[in-house]
Amino acid sequence: MNQKYEIAFQGEHYAFSEIAAKNFLGEGTVCHPMPSFEDVFEAVRRGKPELGIIPIENTTSGSIHRNYDLLVEDGIQIVGEVNLRISLHLITPKDVQFEQLQKIYSHPAALDQCRNLIRTNPQIEFVPSYDTAGSVKLIAEKNLKNTGAIASEFAAQDYGMRILKKEIGDFQENYTRFLIISSKKISFGEPNKTSIVFSTRHIPGALFKSISVFFLRDINLLKIESRPLRGKPWQYLFYLDFSGNMEEKNCQNAIEHLKEITEFIKILGSYPAAK
Amino acid sequence: MNQKYEIAFQGEHYAFSEIAAKNFLGEGTVCHPMPSFEDVFEAVRRGKPELGIIPIENTTSGSIHRNYDLLVEDGIQIVGEVNLRISLHLITPKDVQFEQLQKIYSHPAALDQCRNLIRTNPQIEFVPSYDTAGSVKLIAEKNLKNTGAIASEFAAQDYGMRILKKEIGDFQENYTRFLIISSKKISFGEPNKTSIVFSTRHIPGALFKSISVFFLRDINLLKIESRPLRGKPWQYLFYLDFSGNMEEKNCQNAIEHLKEITEFIKILGSYPAAK
Repeated sequence: MNQKYEIAFQGEHYAFSEIAAKNFLGEGTVCHPMPSFEDVFEAVRRGKPELGIIPIENTTSGSIHRNYDLLVEDGIQIVGEVNLRISLHLITPKDVQFEQLQKIYSHPAALDQCRNLIRTNPQIEFVPSYDTAGSVKLIAEKNLKNTGAIASEFAAQDYGMRILKKEIGDFQENYTRFLIISSKKISFGEPNKTSIVFSTRHIPGALFKSISVFFLRDINLLKIESRPLRGKPWQYLFYLDFSGNMEEKNCQNAIEHLKEITEFIKILGSYPAAK
Repeated sequence: MNQKYEIAFQGEHYAFSEIAAKNFLGEGTVCHPMPSFEDVFEAVRRGKPELGIIPIENTTSGSIHRNYDLLVEDGIQIVGEVNLRISLHLITPKDVQFEQLQKIYSHPAALDQCRNLIRTNPQIEFVPSYDTAGSVKLIAEKNLKNTGAIASEFAAQDYGMRILKKEIGDFQENYTRFLIISSKKISFGEPNKTSIVFSTRHIPGALFKSISVFFLRDINLLKIESRPLRGKPWQYLFYLDFSGNMEEKNCQNAIEHLKEITEFIKILGSYPAAK
């Protein structure tokens, strides 16, 4: 891409979110690290920077539910998505051997993608932290002994550490899907995928009827995710991804039909599907 | 109940799982604390003890996905469920004032149910731990200064601490649904709810068709949850709860119909729905 973008992401430099952002927008992209997903949403809502990137699901560890919750709030739309293969490596200071390791830090989702390593090494304490690359940074800055981190190869290089074991994830085929968010409508190509969120009315077969509005119009459902409706026990928000964009009459009709069944509905955005 | 049961739970004594187990089985129940959910499943699989209790969803923070994943594995069935209102309190040593607090420990799900407290107190570090009651135990045993925990009122009493702030959760109406699991068929009354898990074949409208087998037979769907199929990127397992039990012809027909659409299916159990 020719235009140079600025984008906010959660974590430290060389986090997978930053790698995904540069894959999507180009190497020259200016990436702003932020401590939390809330900070990313808040920055993008203010338009500083204009874009944000958030992980939304991993094919091994599942959905990042906090980000689903944050997407419901006002002032944000989805303008793109990108998939990234997640290669997880065990990173340590240069003089540490595997047998010496007492602690390994990483993001909880990355730990959940390395269950085999955890199960076969009960002598090591696996410690959840806020970021993969941030775990490498922590070891480097605090000069921690007998300690490792699970992160990307780029994080190892940047903090002068080494990769002790390569590809320690449970599955080689391990991908994270990231969403690009903005407070403005920005086009990254022809939109062919749409994300929505809704809650249904208290009617029999409400979920069946909700899904049927797409099936009856030959619109392909790609993903469904349920989350609790906070403060309303045993009621749920449903997040749906489907093929098509909201400029198409067929999709507009489906949403009009869906409104007969729902109590709340929000279009999160139409955008080009990741390859 | 007259019979005295033994049951495994994750966490320390006075964890919400133990409170829920005693509500369901009676005060005389012998409860065995275990460090992880995996340990609970493994103990129940060996029949020592015969029962286990696991949290499966909270109405504020959502599903406990690790337990959904563990339910797929062999040798375990769901034999009961119980709902418990979760009252979260800020617990500290007796001489600590709120203004002195530097750290507050609790289980990540409990922290997620106290977002208001976290947002309005940026000066305090909120630290995730393995258990609510275990966080109180940690403070008591290590005699930690300027530190609090979020847990049940029973945990406060047992470890000689005090409740500094009552009911600090975001919502008064905050419930956790727990499942009772066993390796054997044990009856706690007339079953009227069934849980299943399945993955669909690659056919158009697979999810719609899966849900329609229940709608077409007037069987009420109570919950749907999707999880990644580990090692098969972008494929999902769907967990469904529906009204009815697998002794009923109507439910058997629905499952036979569902098998035409699914690649994998497992009946997790029929059991009496919680009141």
